[in-house]
Amino acid sequence: MIKLLRIKEILANSSIDTEITISGWVKSIRDAKELSFIELNDGSTMSNLQVVVDKQNFSYNDTLNKISTGASIKVRGRVVASVGSGQNIEISAGFISVLGESPNDYPLQKKRHSLEFLREISHLRSRTNTISAVMRVRNTVSFAIHKFLQDRGFFYIHTPIITSSDAEGAGDMFQVTTIPFDSKKIDSIDYKQDFFGCKTHLTVSGQLAVESYCLGLGNVYTFGPTFRAENSNTVRHLAEFWMVEPEMAFYRLDELIELSQDFLRYLLQEVLENCQEDLIFFDQRIKPGLLENLRSVAGSSFKHMTYTEAIDVLTHAIAQGKTFEYPVQWGVDLKSEHERYLTEEYSKSPVIVTDYPKEIKSFYMKLNDDGKTVRGMDILVPGIGEIIGGSEREDDYETLLNRMKESGLDIDSYQWYLDLRKYGSVPHSGFGLGLERFVMWVTGMSNIRDVIPFPRTIKNCQF
Amino acid sequence: MIKLLRIKEILANSSIDTEITISGWVKSIRDAKELSFIELNDGSTMSNLQVVVDKQNFSYNDTLNKISTGASIKVRGRVVASVGSGQNIEISAGFISVLGESPNDYPLQKKRHSLEFLREISHLRSRTNTISAVMRVRNTVSFAIHKFLQDRGFFYIHTPIITSSDAEGAGDMFQVTTIPFDSKKIDSIDYKQDFFGCKTHLTVSGQLAVESYCLGLGNVYTFGPTFRAENSNTVRHLAEFWMVEPEMAFYRLDELIELSQDFLRYLLQEVLENCQEDLIFFDQRIKPGLLENLRSVAGSSFKHMTYTEAIDVLTHAIAQGKTFEYPVQWGVDLKSEHERYLTEEYSKSPVIVTDYPKEIKSFYMKLNDDGKTVRGMDILVPGIGEIIGGSEREDDYETLLNRMKESGLDIDSYQWYLDLRKYGSVPHSGFGLGLERFVMWVTGMSNIRDVIPFPRTIKNCQF
Repeated sequence: MIKLLRIKEILANSSIDTEITISGWVKSIRDAKELSFIELNDGSTMSNLQVVVDKQNFSYNDTLNKISTGASIKVRGRVVASVGSGQNIEISAGFISVLGESPNDYPLQKKRHSLEFLREISHLRSRTNTISAVMRVRNTVSFAIHKFLQDRGFFYIHTPIITSSDAEGAGDMFQVTTIPFDSKKIDSIDYKQDFFGCKTHLTVSGQLAVESYCLGLGNVYTFGPTFRAENSNTVRHLAEFWMVEPEMAFYRLDELIELSQDFLRYLLQEVLENCQEDLIFFDQRIKPGLLENLRSVAGSSFKHMTYTEAIDVLTHAIAQGKTFEYPVQWGVDLKSEHERYLTEEYSKSPVIVTDYPKEIKSFYMKLNDDGKTVRGMDILVPGIGEIIGGSEREDDYETLLNRMKESGLDIDSYQWYLDLRKYGSVPHSGFGLGLERFVMWVTGMSNIRDVIPFPRTIKNCQF
Repeated sequence: MIKLLRIKEILANSSIDTEITISGWVKSIRDAKELSFIELNDGSTMSNLQVVVDKQNFSYNDTLNKISTGASIKVRGRVVASVGSGQNIEISAGFISVLGESPNDYPLQKKRHSLEFLREISHLRSRTNTISAVMRVRNTVSFAIHKFLQDRGFFYIHTPIITSSDAEGAGDMFQVTTIPFDSKKIDSIDYKQDFFGCKTHLTVSGQLAVESYCLGLGNVYTFGPTFRAENSNTVRHLAEFWMVEPEMAFYRLDELIELSQDFLRYLLQEVLENCQEDLIFFDQRIKPGLLENLRSVAGSSFKHMTYTEAIDVLTHAIAQGKTFEYPVQWGVDLKSEHERYLTEEYSKSPVIVTDYPKEIKSFYMKLNDDGKTVRGMDILVPGIGEIIGGSEREDDYETLLNRMKESGLDIDSYQWYLDLRKYGSVPHSGFGLGLERFVMWVTGMSNIRDVIPFPRTIKNCQF
């Protein structure tokens, strides 16, 4: 069987005069007097391969008439040095067959299409430069996440998507049911009759579940879809998104900071190394300055300050004349404008903020000895704000129980989580990175709907 | 910062007389006259590290009283050659601190526990030999899936979990909603008021969605959770399970067969190489003969026969006196007993069966020229039956439309899928592998509930 070559391999490895067979989709076809030029793409890379067709060869006439933008073809031909600019090699076509034609109503004719329009045809948009580049970057980031963690002995744990916890404190939830509640026959709802025999929802985070496997296997991570039923119709919110959540036994805040910083820099370096062509495209077409920003963060060491220090910096800035929309005082949550000031104006680098007031953070974060702050950690990066959130976890049974009561959680349904602190509790820490937020950052894309194959947002679940 | 060592690294790399610090959970503590012996495990590997404590050292008395099975401790000590059998090295303890005690009601006291019992304490069961070994194997398989596909230039596509398709022909679905239907206030259901503005479900397969990105990016795969609301309370069914579904543009049935066979052998080899210790455990404790079976399949070439040939083989066997519970004739679906005969008795190797009657396969499988069979493919393995199912996809618009009508699908909601055959259609093929089925096979575990961290089955959604 002849191995099918992809355009990426051909551009990288083929030598002049080699005979090859290649398949792909026609980006454009241009007629000259004696020749036709076909720009062919197969998704393996941003670059097209130019196929040159000698029209005087009689047998092409029929075939050429069927070839238009969007058509799929198979070409057998010879690699030749390109005479035109923009590419080193091209294919001198020996034989072309049309795999699938593309009628005139093909929505992706050769012109600029708005990202809004492309969202309406999400099933075809992977054939565009922008979306295919985003998906290649997303792929590189996803695999880099696995590589980084696997190289360090982490185990990938698939935490459950359907959960019987009715709130994990992280957001509104979708209900999952097999009760035919829209049928006229249902008089009253009995959850004993539901599939799982109880009320169930889609998870908002795999953290609590992965902690359980952390406290047996050591270093673990969950990486999968999570769900929020928030009524937020913004460019930064999805109802369904992917999150990676590593959890490390015996790690305290210091080690958490070091690991998450290494993680972030590794992901950036992998993208910079493996997606050069795509990043150049984003730098030129989507967000000028992108590459410089990414390279600078990948090489920089992150500034560390406590929340209290961050408030001091902000207060000092106000005293110097800086104005913010939202008030700054110890106890308030940092807003996007504050995060941007810290990274973009104050430190001109990513900033790690730790030791937040317990009132503005989750119940599971370890309480400091001061009784007021918790060992939470956020990594803020220039241009995007918070990219990673994590913490050392509360590992003391009684303290955790109190924090859960304070937070109004139903203790019974979290007894299993408390058990982890009852039997062989250990210091442990973890963080979460939202995949889409990261991909937005490294591609410069400004709408989160364009960095996931089929976005799910309020009032939209197409395809 | 001192890098925390894991037991796996210590056993592999530490030289005698090195000073190390190690943390983990106590599997057992045994008292001798002058010494105490602690078996310590940290989840990184099946093996425990033995910690030897000289009781005459006065400072230990208090500490030792707090150490029992399940407790977590931190040990500073010296690597010494082990005098006992079963390990090459052990740790001579210099200093021990107790991180977390383990009260007497710790459910995992040192004795054999049934897998049923462990399911009731799924949040603690990763601390047992069996479940930790399963999860390490599951991790190795999951990462091997990514490595195999990434090495070949496949892109990882996250297909959506929530879908507006009300049936994909693959099974019963869970409904996803934010309508508070158990509230007394709801008089009638208006899906325009639901979160997505329409009725939505959890996906049963990412295939159709990933095909869309395949026809732009070339070689892609989806690997994520899928859902079936089937009322099947068996050892082989989960309501939530993980599936990998690669999809290859320009691949026909032949290439599909070759790739899926390579894929399966690669996964086996990765497990055999990276999980030796765990597999030996499964071979000795769970399923004798397991290792031999896996090695044999990893090295064997798979036998290929068409469905029609398979029916002939089975009919011939019946003529020779073999009895089956279910009837055999052209047109029926192969049952488990038939699959087992083909692999275990007839060919004594994995068997690839292709070209099934269209009536027993999905609408998207490519129709053969005979008009009766489709280019579907199942890989059957000894001891477990079907492990991979795939097909060349129907790439002709009219043929697909007819097959969809025959199958009673709502054409309107699949117009996007038909579009993929309207604009630049190409031959393409894909397959699906259920992760849990594969992990059951390579570990010899007989209940699917024991190969996923938190199983979701009918009437059970604990933790």
